[in-house]
Amino acid sequence: MSTNGNNKISLPVINRLPRYYRTVRKMQHNGVTTVSSSELAGMLGTTASQVRQDFNCFGGFGQQGVGYNVDLLSTELESLLMGGDALSTIVIGTGRLGRAISHFLAFDARGFRLIAAFDQHPDEVGSSFGILTVRNINTLGDYCRRYHPQIAVLCIPEEGAAQLAPTLMDLGIRGFWNFSNYDLPSREGVTIVSVHLGDSLTSLGFRVRESLENNP
Amino acid sequence: MSTNGNNKISLPVINRLPRYYRTVRKMQHNGVTTVSSSELAGMLGTTASQVRQDFNCFGGFGQQGVGYNVDLLSTELESLLMGGDALSTIVIGTGRLGRAISHFLAFDARGFRLIAAFDQHPDEVGSSFGILTVRNINTLGDYCRRYHPQIAVLCIPEEGAAQLAPTLMDLGIRGFWNFSNYDLPSREGVTIVSVHLGDSLTSLGFRVRESLENNP
Repeated sequence: MSTNGNNKISLPVINRLPRYYRTVRKMQHNGVTTVSSSELAGMLGTTASQVRQDFNCFGGFGQQGVGYNVDLLSTELESLLMGGDALSTIVIGTGRLGRAISHFLAFDARGFRLIAAFDQHPDEVGSSFGILTVRNINTLGDYCRRYHPQIAVLCIPEEGAAQLAPTLMDLGIRGFWNFSNYDLPSREGVTIVSVHLGDSLTSLGFRVRESLENNP
Repeated sequence: MSTNGNNKISLPVINRLPRYYRTVRKMQHNGVTTVSSSELAGMLGTTASQVRQDFNCFGGFGQQGVGYNVDLLSTELESLLMGGDALSTIVIGTGRLGRAISHFLAFDARGFRLIAAFDQHPDEVGSSFGILTVRNINTLGDYCRRYHPQIAVLCIPEEGAAQLAPTLMDLGIRGFWNFSNYDLPSREGVTIVSVHLGDSLTSLGFRVRESLENNP
């Protein structure tokens, strides 16, 4: 299963796909064998027409009228989202968050393969990191020119991320999973997905305070 | 500074506020003293009219024509987003991710105060957790009835989150920062902000693979 010809899939559609996959996997786990677009829509808080329209971007995933085969849908979504060669991935920053995120990656790889971890702190460099050993950040350039990693996971503060991002792009990194508090500059051919923990926490706080004011 | 009368602020506006705050803090750090709505818009990839419209939900934050005073804007946004009594917060799940997230919270509190941590694993219970000691999850009900925490950070797998969420809501939790792979059921008066690491990683993978196909 591949994308439908040369049509570029829009970002909102792409961002809905992982949730479709998650929902379908749960149904599979619960022994459900077929599902209609309206059932899927109900579970995802969207409309049946939206579901069909999204799936049509990828060839439809099944016959209309009889519902989708859950096993098939799961396989198709998995192949679409995580199929092909694993993306070689490096982690920059091996503090608590870097280690937690790498553990997540090791446990639930989703088409990524962690090949190296880097840090600048003498205490970290040389320490074990799952099955890897933390490398000195000074060796990052040499490493990238030799092994051509495709993805960088940034678990470092804002200043470090701002300084390293352009270098990493020059070294051929094609995708960033960014946990720093910094908005990476965009560049043609480079995909950036940021998880701004501070923003999501701040938004939660504002909404809870507002709710407490209206309904203590 | 409070919200403008009884008008309910829409979620997209609320979700933009932390980014405004982050941008303004960076300008403050760099010694910038005034900023126009169009400069702000440029930094945030939006329009000047959007910025003015967003700020008008909160009384405007300044005079049009002369630009915003950066210090004042920062103070107003901080008070709006994080002001008032700290929200008492508990963490459920003290594995790698729970510890990393709690460290983040301790370092950058943003109006939250971590008061307890719970886990079910005998190895975790009783271990130190920053300045706290990990409590047994069996004591969660008693703890909540006694200390009335307002926020729960869920760093546990899907099954645990599905099982605990309704109980926590019954016990008076008003906000969830959810790191489990589970979409919590909504309930009136309860705010849920989820950080679905798997979804964001999957979306990154799909986009990078698509980009590699078009431009290897």
